[in-house]
Amino acid sequence: MQLFQREEIERVIRLDTEVVNVIEDGFSALITKNVHMPPIMRVDVPINNGEVDIKSAYIEGYDSFAVKLSSGFFNNPQKGLPSANGMMILLSAETGVPKAVLADNGLLTDIRTAAAGAVAAKYCSRKDSRTAGIIGTGAQARLQLQALTLVRPIEHVHVYGRRTEKAEEFKQDIQKMLGLNVSVCKSPQEVVEESDIVVTTTPSKEPIVKAEWLHPGLHITAMGSDAEHKQELDCAVINHADIFVCDVIEQSKRLGELRNCPSYTIEKAIELGEITSGSQQGRLTNEQVTVCDLSGTGVQDTAIARHVYSLLVSKEETIHERR
Amino acid sequence: MQLFQREEIERVIRLDTEVVNVIEDGFSALITKNVHMPPIMRVDVPINNGEVDIKSAYIEGYDSFAVKLSSGFFNNPQKGLPSANGMMILLSAETGVPKAVLADNGLLTDIRTAAAGAVAAKYCSRKDSRTAGIIGTGAQARLQLQALTLVRPIEHVHVYGRRTEKAEEFKQDIQKMLGLNVSVCKSPQEVVEESDIVVTTTPSKEPIVKAEWLHPGLHITAMGSDAEHKQELDCAVINHADIFVCDVIEQSKRLGELRNCPSYTIEKAIELGEITSGSQQGRLTNEQVTVCDLSGTGVQDTAIARHVYSLLVSKEETIHERR
Repeated sequence: MQLFQREEIERVIRLDTEVVNVIEDGFSALITKNVHMPPIMRVDVPINNGEVDIKSAYIEGYDSFAVKLSSGFFNNPQKGLPSANGMMILLSAETGVPKAVLADNGLLTDIRTAAAGAVAAKYCSRKDSRTAGIIGTGAQARLQLQALTLVRPIEHVHVYGRRTEKAEEFKQDIQKMLGLNVSVCKSPQEVVEESDIVVTTTPSKEPIVKAEWLHPGLHITAMGSDAEHKQELDCAVINHADIFVCDVIEQSKRLGELRNCPSYTIEKAIELGEITSGSQQGRLTNEQVTVCDLSGTGVQDTAIARHVYSLLVSKEETIHERR
Repeated sequence: MQLFQREEIERVIRLDTEVVNVIEDGFSALITKNVHMPPIMRVDVPINNGEVDIKSAYIEGYDSFAVKLSSGFFNNPQKGLPSANGMMILLSAETGVPKAVLADNGLLTDIRTAAAGAVAAKYCSRKDSRTAGIIGTGAQARLQLQALTLVRPIEHVHVYGRRTEKAEEFKQDIQKMLGLNVSVCKSPQEVVEESDIVVTTTPSKEPIVKAEWLHPGLHITAMGSDAEHKQELDCAVINHADIFVCDVIEQSKRLGELRNCPSYTIEKAIELGEITSGSQQGRLTNEQVTVCDLSGTGVQDTAIARHVYSLLVSKEETIHERR
């Protein structure tokens, strides 16, 4: 079994079209193949305000699959450490033998989460979307925007954060990194009203997007809610959308935006993999309002772990050949 | 994060009194401390007759805890590979940061499982137990016997296996390894009738020990059943025992011997940790018949992972000091 540290992983993978395609194939597999994906396992460490989540998914026909540990220890910032941590273990699906430990410290989760945002935008947003609105100013907010630029001709960005200095930092970073115009907005309403695509990437416990702000052609991806106590969209937003999409309906009902929207007609909900695999259609007209709720799946972890492992191994082979 | 391969782990740990004490302390912690132990997570890979089980337990007050992956891929022997595989990941309970990957290939599970057998015998069997009966002839059968010799003055062994040649191999190995007299028996009945302590270590799906064979002073440890379809003891054996002990009552009802014994008065069942921590008594007289059902817990994994990590790190420090 091989151990790959974060630095080695960083050298072979970045958020690009290739990764978006890998994650898109993962969503399609959720629909077209038999997938064994047990519910998330959680170990609580209440004394240190911490938890470890364990996810996994085996996709029939694939020769390997991942088990992912991701932790959140929310007293860490007081100790000068990041809250989040994590690693993936890639196992042979033929023999159960561990092939690799990817000690990525959450990097691959960050990338696969952003790539899922790109897949959602690719199938649900208007093709000519030029303005992106980002609510939230963290690392995932930056990655989500970067992901959008891979699939849509984004020219201008509207950002809102509760702390203005964070939004200003976001603006500086994005202008330098992606060369895009960024406007810091005074409210989530301003972001929504000004944008073709909106991505919410917050740990909010209360809805921050209201139905009154929706306008023809808008697409919203809600990334933030992935636990029982979180919510980003008002239930009326979901009810007003022409198309509501999510990664896994059951999970959206348990951990995502559907949890707070019992009035929604669940039969209308579409899974993202149904669209990527062609059994359902995404956006049909330039006027529709579309909403996608993503809470994260083990299939994405298996997809990116397999991809990065193949890159790491082929790199090793190249080095070996040169010697 | 450090990666330790099986060879390094083998160099620092063996089945000895120290490990038995470590596992005993783990059982006591299950009773005396707050323990967060989620249900076992299982990923099925039916196409290759395989499964991966994931166990974990955090014991409040401990500075680290383990997550264990253990796999069984039952087509492996046809490929010349062992069915079982596994690894443990030790995480800081203070920050969630992964401290070490123990790529032990199941070695630590084998040792902690055998050590639990020693703990059961230490508290439940007669102190003067001299004859051990082993039903089953695999690797765990050998380890269980070795574990018994750490806590009881075993002189003679009775073994039964469905395949006589395997029992003969067991006999040769034990005579060479432990210098004990071994008799190969014709039936489980002969083993039970001739022994002070009996350990069953089989993958049996039907009861192999009958109540008619019980005799005063006998102790039985049933190790084999750890899944819904397995059973080693007739329900009447449990009902006839003066004391019935198990590692975790809820787990024995779900995966262990209690599953097939609905007639048993569950309030009489004792958890092994209640005995090791002193809140319940084990064997009281030389005449009692005692039964212990062990299906394996995440607490044992956390206990042995922490122990082996401290041995590995102190060894590294010693090497460092010498330089």
